Amino acid sequence: MAKSTVDRKLTIAVIGGGKCTPQEAALAETVGRELAKRGVVLVCGGLTGVMEAACRGAAIESGLTVGILPGENPEDSNPYVQIPVATGTGHARNVAVVRSAQAVIAIDGDYGTLTEIGFALKGGIPVVGLHTWSLYRNDEEDMSIVKAEDAVDAVEKALSLAKGQKLE
Amino acid sequence: MAKSTVDRKLTIAVIGGGKCTPQEAALAETVGRELAKRGVVLVCGGLTGVMEAACRGAAIESGLTVGILPGENPEDSNPYVQIPVATGTGHARNVAVVRSAQAVIAIDGDYGTLTEIGFALKGGIPVVGLHTWSLYRNDEEDMSIVKAEDAVDAVEKALSLAKGQKLE
Amino acid sequence: MAKSTVDRKLTIAVIGGGKCTPQEAALAETVGRELAKRGVVLVCGGLTGVMEAACRGAAIESGLTVGILPGENPEDSNPYVQIPVATGTGHARNVAVVRSAQAVIAIDGDYGTLTEIGFALKGGIPVVGLHTWSLYRNDEEDMSIVKAEDAVDAVEKALSLAKGQKLE
Amino acid sequence: MAKSTVDRKLTIAVIGGGKCTPQEAALAETVGRELAKRGVVLVCGGLTGVMEAACRGAAIESGLTVGILPGENPEDSNPYVQIPVATGTGHARNVAVVRSAQAVIAIDGDYGTLTEIGFALKGGIPVVGLHTWSLYRNDEEDMSIVKAEDAVDAVEKALSLAKGQKLE
Repeated sequence: MAKSTVDRKLTIAVIGGGKCTPQEAALAETVGRELAKRGVVLVCGGLTGVMEAACRGAAIESGLTVGILPGENPEDSNPYVQIPVATGTGHARNVAVVRSAQAVIAIDGDYGTLTEIGFALKGGIPVVGLHTWSLYRNDEEDMSIVKAEDAVDAVEKALSLAKGQKLE
Repeated sequence: MAKSTVDRKLTIAVIGGGKCTPQEAALAETVGRELAKRGVVLVCGGLTGVMEAACRGAAIESGLTVGILPGENPEDSNPYVQIPVATGTGHARNVAVVRSAQAVIAIDGDYGTLTEIGFALKGGIPVVGLHTWSLYRNDEEDMSIVKAEDAVDAVEKALSLAKGQKLE
Repeated sequence: MAKSTVDRKLTIAVIGGGKCTPQEAALAETVGRELAKRGVVLVCGGLTGVMEAACRGAAIESGLTVGILPGENPEDSNPYVQIPVATGTGHARNVAVVRSAQAVIAIDGDYGTLTEIGFALKGGIPVVGLHTWSLYRNDEEDMSIVKAEDAVDAVEKALSLAKGQKLE
Repeated sequence: MAKSTVDRKLTIAVIGGGKCTPQEAALAETVGRELAKRGVVLVCGGLTGVMEAACRGAAIESGLTVGILPGENPEDSNPYVQIPVATGTGHARNVAVVRSAQAVIAIDGDYGTLTEIGFALKGGIPVVGLHTWSLYRNDEEDMSIVKAEDAVDAVEKALSLAKGQKLE
């Protein structure tokens, strides 16, 4: 790419279940707030649960939110998404969610989140985990998911890991 | 969708060839400028040619530009894209380019642009054409592509046609 | 690719609308029969209308039929599909329908068929047309779609055009 | 779906790394042979490693093999694939590999395989594992992957689990 001549900000994906507990929602909201306070663009799958809570947090701090949707209608995004992208490719959009970011924060999540973690690690995108999946390959722990203590720790770790591949 | 509680702007897709003549580039740049002056978000395929010229025009007027890329690397976008989305789905991302907009402006373009016109019309997204494809079905002209005289006319027609389905 | 060591047959895609007239269905069925009689694998979008009629024709002659579906459920294919592929990527599966073939026969069809014609031509896959779209680029006719007189003519033209890129 | 009027066979996906050890290749080849002996269609990602070994095994027993490729060229498939499907959607084709089957056998595998396991479990497709990933969610083991002892055990478990959702 030619050096970007527009203000292109660091982008972090927040991934997690479309349904979540109030505790997880609070965690996701704080992650969203902390990302926005640092001027980071938040990208997510655009729907409910962890995705919506993270976007709400970012919106509170006037951060920019991108929602990459499975369906064909931008209006299906949660109300805190500023830039809805309607892919029309169903769960295949999980690739886009993580590949559009320089690091990923996974909060809880189900099998869809697991696929996003897999696509991120496959593509060399760092993944920070909060109460999420742990992976064992042939009974040996795969240490690729960097565990975080809390929302601020997750954001700081994601920013630190993303730095190396920051878009200039 | 719950009523959006963030500032979600009207979004117009600009589609056209990855290679284009200087005349087409000038046309695309003016389209980009006119969209940005009206506060519209420009979405495109994120690459070169018509896409880059339109983004450059929008950037001159400090408009927001979204580039929906075929590949897996956000850095492959042209330097005037502010929000790169790396879908990893190749030409299948053409669906996302048009479905993420409330109207489409087609400038010249090759077979890839033809597929985007098809996906837009299939989805009921209005298409305004500048020196682009004309379609005949069973030897009868399909009048769905609204012809425009010049860049300003294209932008005004796209805005007018998009109004009905504007995100509230 | 290493030379195929299994019996890999020439594959032709039949594309067209999910709804069609009895005349178009008869045409599609004959195309399917003629392909199967010649030992060709028929690939299509797996659904109703032209797709189903073509598969029915192939099934009558014991030909092999592949249905590349938009949804996530193989059971959504028409009853004459032997090999259902459930892509889960919606209309983006149109790319797969034509790229999996060595030539394409388009019968009538709506905007979805138009996108398949575009993807085929973009990828250098020959397209033979029966009562389908005609294309004009900047008011000049694009002659890439090879017009056929009837079903047998379409099949023969498709086979002849495909020969050059036949998988050995 | 209307009851299938063609011979539509049970389909099992075999997933695993594009690179594998000779031991894993031998395991995959035996899985392929055992599937083919039972008249099962083998679907896979169409490339090298575990995918190729499984197809080779199936080919030895004259089984039918379907390769769902990431790229746009059917010729990129391994030489034991009879029906290559060129999706053009990159890693997003992982959804199609598992959703086109009634059960999945995972052999070893890297992060790509992990995403396929995730998509299968998300879609309710049973997964049988041979020396592959184990999953812990919030430090609690997710028992969804059914462990198998050897190739024959994997095939028998996959057939048994698939039975309930067999296409009629």
